[in-house]
Amino acid sequence: MKKILVLGAGRSSSSLISYLIKQAAHHEWHITVGDVFKKYAEEKIGASSHAKAIEFNIEKRDDSTLAIRHADVIISLLPASLHPQVAKLCLQEKKHLLTASYVSDEMKKLDTETKTSGLLFLNECGLDPGIDHMSAMQVIDKIKHIGGEVTSFESFTGGLIAPDTDPHNPWRYKFTWNPRNVVLAGQGTAKYLHDGKFKYIPYQQLFTRTTSVSVPGFGEYEGYANRDSLKYAEVYGLRECKTVLRGTLRNKGYCSAWNILAQLGCCDDSYTMDGIETMTHKEFIASFLNTKNSEEEIAKRFLVSMDGEEMKRLKWSGFFSDEKIGLTQATPAQALEHILNKKWRLAPGDKDFIVMWHRFNYGLGGKEKEIQAWLTATGENETHTAMAKTVGLPLAIATKLLLQNKIQSRGVATPVTSEFYDPILKELKELGIGLQEKEMI
Amino acid sequence: MKKILVLGAGRSSSSLISYLIKQAAHHEWHITVGDVFKKYAEEKIGASSHAKAIEFNIEKRDDSTLAIRHADVIISLLPASLHPQVAKLCLQEKKHLLTASYVSDEMKKLDTETKTSGLLFLNECGLDPGIDHMSAMQVIDKIKHIGGEVTSFESFTGGLIAPDTDPHNPWRYKFTWNPRNVVLAGQGTAKYLHDGKFKYIPYQQLFTRTTSVSVPGFGEYEGYANRDSLKYAEVYGLRECKTVLRGTLRNKGYCSAWNILAQLGCCDDSYTMDGIETMTHKEFIASFLNTKNSEEEIAKRFLVSMDGEEMKRLKWSGFFSDEKIGLTQATPAQALEHILNKKWRLAPGDKDFIVMWHRFNYGLGGKEKEIQAWLTATGENETHTAMAKTVGLPLAIATKLLLQNKIQSRGVATPVTSEFYDPILKELKELGIGLQEKEMI
Repeated sequence: MKKILVLGAGRSSSSLISYLIKQAAHHEWHITVGDVFKKYAEEKIGASSHAKAIEFNIEKRDDSTLAIRHADVIISLLPASLHPQVAKLCLQEKKHLLTASYVSDEMKKLDTETKTSGLLFLNECGLDPGIDHMSAMQVIDKIKHIGGEVTSFESFTGGLIAPDTDPHNPWRYKFTWNPRNVVLAGQGTAKYLHDGKFKYIPYQQLFTRTTSVSVPGFGEYEGYANRDSLKYAEVYGLRECKTVLRGTLRNKGYCSAWNILAQLGCCDDSYTMDGIETMTHKEFIASFLNTKNSEEEIAKRFLVSMDGEEMKRLKWSGFFSDEKIGLTQATPAQALEHILNKKWRLAPGDKDFIVMWHRFNYGLGGKEKEIQAWLTATGENETHTAMAKTVGLPLAIATKLLLQNKIQSRGVATPVTSEFYDPILKELKELGIGLQEKEMI
Repeated sequence: MKKILVLGAGRSSSSLISYLIKQAAHHEWHITVGDVFKKYAEEKIGASSHAKAIEFNIEKRDDSTLAIRHADVIISLLPASLHPQVAKLCLQEKKHLLTASYVSDEMKKLDTETKTSGLLFLNECGLDPGIDHMSAMQVIDKIKHIGGEVTSFESFTGGLIAPDTDPHNPWRYKFTWNPRNVVLAGQGTAKYLHDGKFKYIPYQQLFTRTTSVSVPGFGEYEGYANRDSLKYAEVYGLRECKTVLRGTLRNKGYCSAWNILAQLGCCDDSYTMDGIETMTHKEFIASFLNTKNSEEEIAKRFLVSMDGEEMKRLKWSGFFSDEKIGLTQATPAQALEHILNKKWRLAPGDKDFIVMWHRFNYGLGGKEKEIQAWLTATGENETHTAMAKTVGLPLAIATKLLLQNKIQSRGVATPVTSEFYDPILKELKELGIGLQEKEMI
């Protein structure tokens, strides 16, 4: 009997837990799901006899230690900031750990100790980061294997909504993961490599410097650069590559409307606003403008038409309404998230939609070649979202492989080697999440 | 014999030290000037028998303690970040301290202890902050005295260059104080009060949301909002005032050209650029753009004409030249400062020019009234700048008043009461730095 402890029963956990429970009898697994709110864990496991729910609060050190001690492997979906604490307990109790979060500097420091203890701390094994790494590395390794040299690598991923969901929503977007991260997205400076030159995009330019991305069979999207593409040249073994750009995909028109909110200062999380408790949506926007006539001033300031696409989105979100925000204290970013959430929360029946797209340019035998690879996934409903599937299933499959002794890597790792990406991508395809690949002419 | 210790012999110290030396014989003063580089202190005191130069490094605790112990009053022109250290030594040695820097939170905490020790720690007694506080409070107190109620207060100050200086410089600007502060100016969010509403301007909007300021007899300037105007409602006793805005003045056209540099990300001080050691000015700018054709891309991105005023300024500063930057490591802000300094350093004969302007709207006997007050000062040359005069003389006069027992305030203070502003403004006027005031019709 192998014991799996899943930490966090939030919106990304549904598919992960369903997969583990479904396979539990066959593999002789027992699943424990822990959450600060035990009822979330109970909801996720349902009536399964192979699983139990517990309260799990990493701050309660003794209980946390015991829960980890009783498991063979830990999967953590807790906020990334808590992972160093979880990792230290895992080291102490000599347990493997799997997460979908970026490897932090603190996590990186545990590499040697983890290896010495014969443990695997696998991170970045969700969607983005996760499937993006695996699918990119599978193609990159294949190009290298036939003697090609990758000269350019671009990769974009977005969590959107399905074409038939919320048809009147002009943003073609809803919150399918942590809303706070959506509001704060892109703050800092994006760094990438273009044609051998280092390029920098500050936040204030990010949503105006978008790239058009055409996904075969799915149409046109727009992408903005992620914070640090440069480190992937190293991670992916692309040191000679002249262009390395990773970014986020949105439906057309999203960025130029979002740019207005970003430019106005609505995404600022650095100070608390005065008078928020009595403020309406309209007054919120006006506090970032000179005049009371917000619509006219925005149109003039950002050179957009009063009836244009940008204003349509802002109006639909209720930014010019007399509705009270309904918060007693907030930074601009918190107020913005609260206003957006009134229209962007997934409603019953809503389906989300994931799009991932890579382009590889490479030289082979003196010729310039190009491969594009892409993946889409549609959610079943507002609970079993495509986001939950694509974040959770890679983690679940990796856990299975580890418990079957099919993974030999140890230490702090990411799934960029074939030991991970071959079996995980293969099973994802069988589960309906398959990458398509095309050699372009 | 009273002993005055001046700390810091940098570019703002010349007029302060000249004033003190000139009056030393009459008042039986002895002046000691300390700087990390003793030669700067020596240059400033010249051959005076009333003054001596010493090496002063606040990090050398024992020497610093002795220097402070031997003085009756300390004037510090050191960087503001060092003032808490200086203040603690002054408390220990029971000496008065005067600075031209903003009162930091750390300084504020020393208030009770300073009062208990019978000491005055006077801050914000230079130009801006300094003369701005004094001249504003003199008018505000006068309005209150006659029973008026201030409804709106706006105040702008700028350190510019004299009209006949560097006539081909289209920015009408040079570095007359710390260049680093000029490059980083405005980062964060500006907060002010307009017509009873809180207003917020993020950095990315700051240089586009300028106010036109007409100074009687001196023409038109443009002003952008300073970081925090709100706290001055409190400090100035303007709690009922509906509009409170403090800002920085520039000559017309400066802000729309500077906006391009700010928007591109050139003022970012948060990361070190790659490849700076071989970079030309042109490549520096191109690293913030998509294409190599920087001029065309800037014109297109910011909707300015290729031959227009903004491009004229950028070209004059050499941003499109093949000249090497000449640094081995730099953040964007450091590289920008270095490039700008090639043309913006004060040259022999250059004269700087200070402009300060206030507008007070007030109600009196049911009528709406307005007073404007303004001050200008022109430097003598590139050493005895208007900046050095207007920063140094208020400090020097305050020191004289204190040594003559004409100041009774104790504790951590700013010169916002008549005990300070009446005698200081009176003597400044005699020294040629006089405010003009006009009741508008």
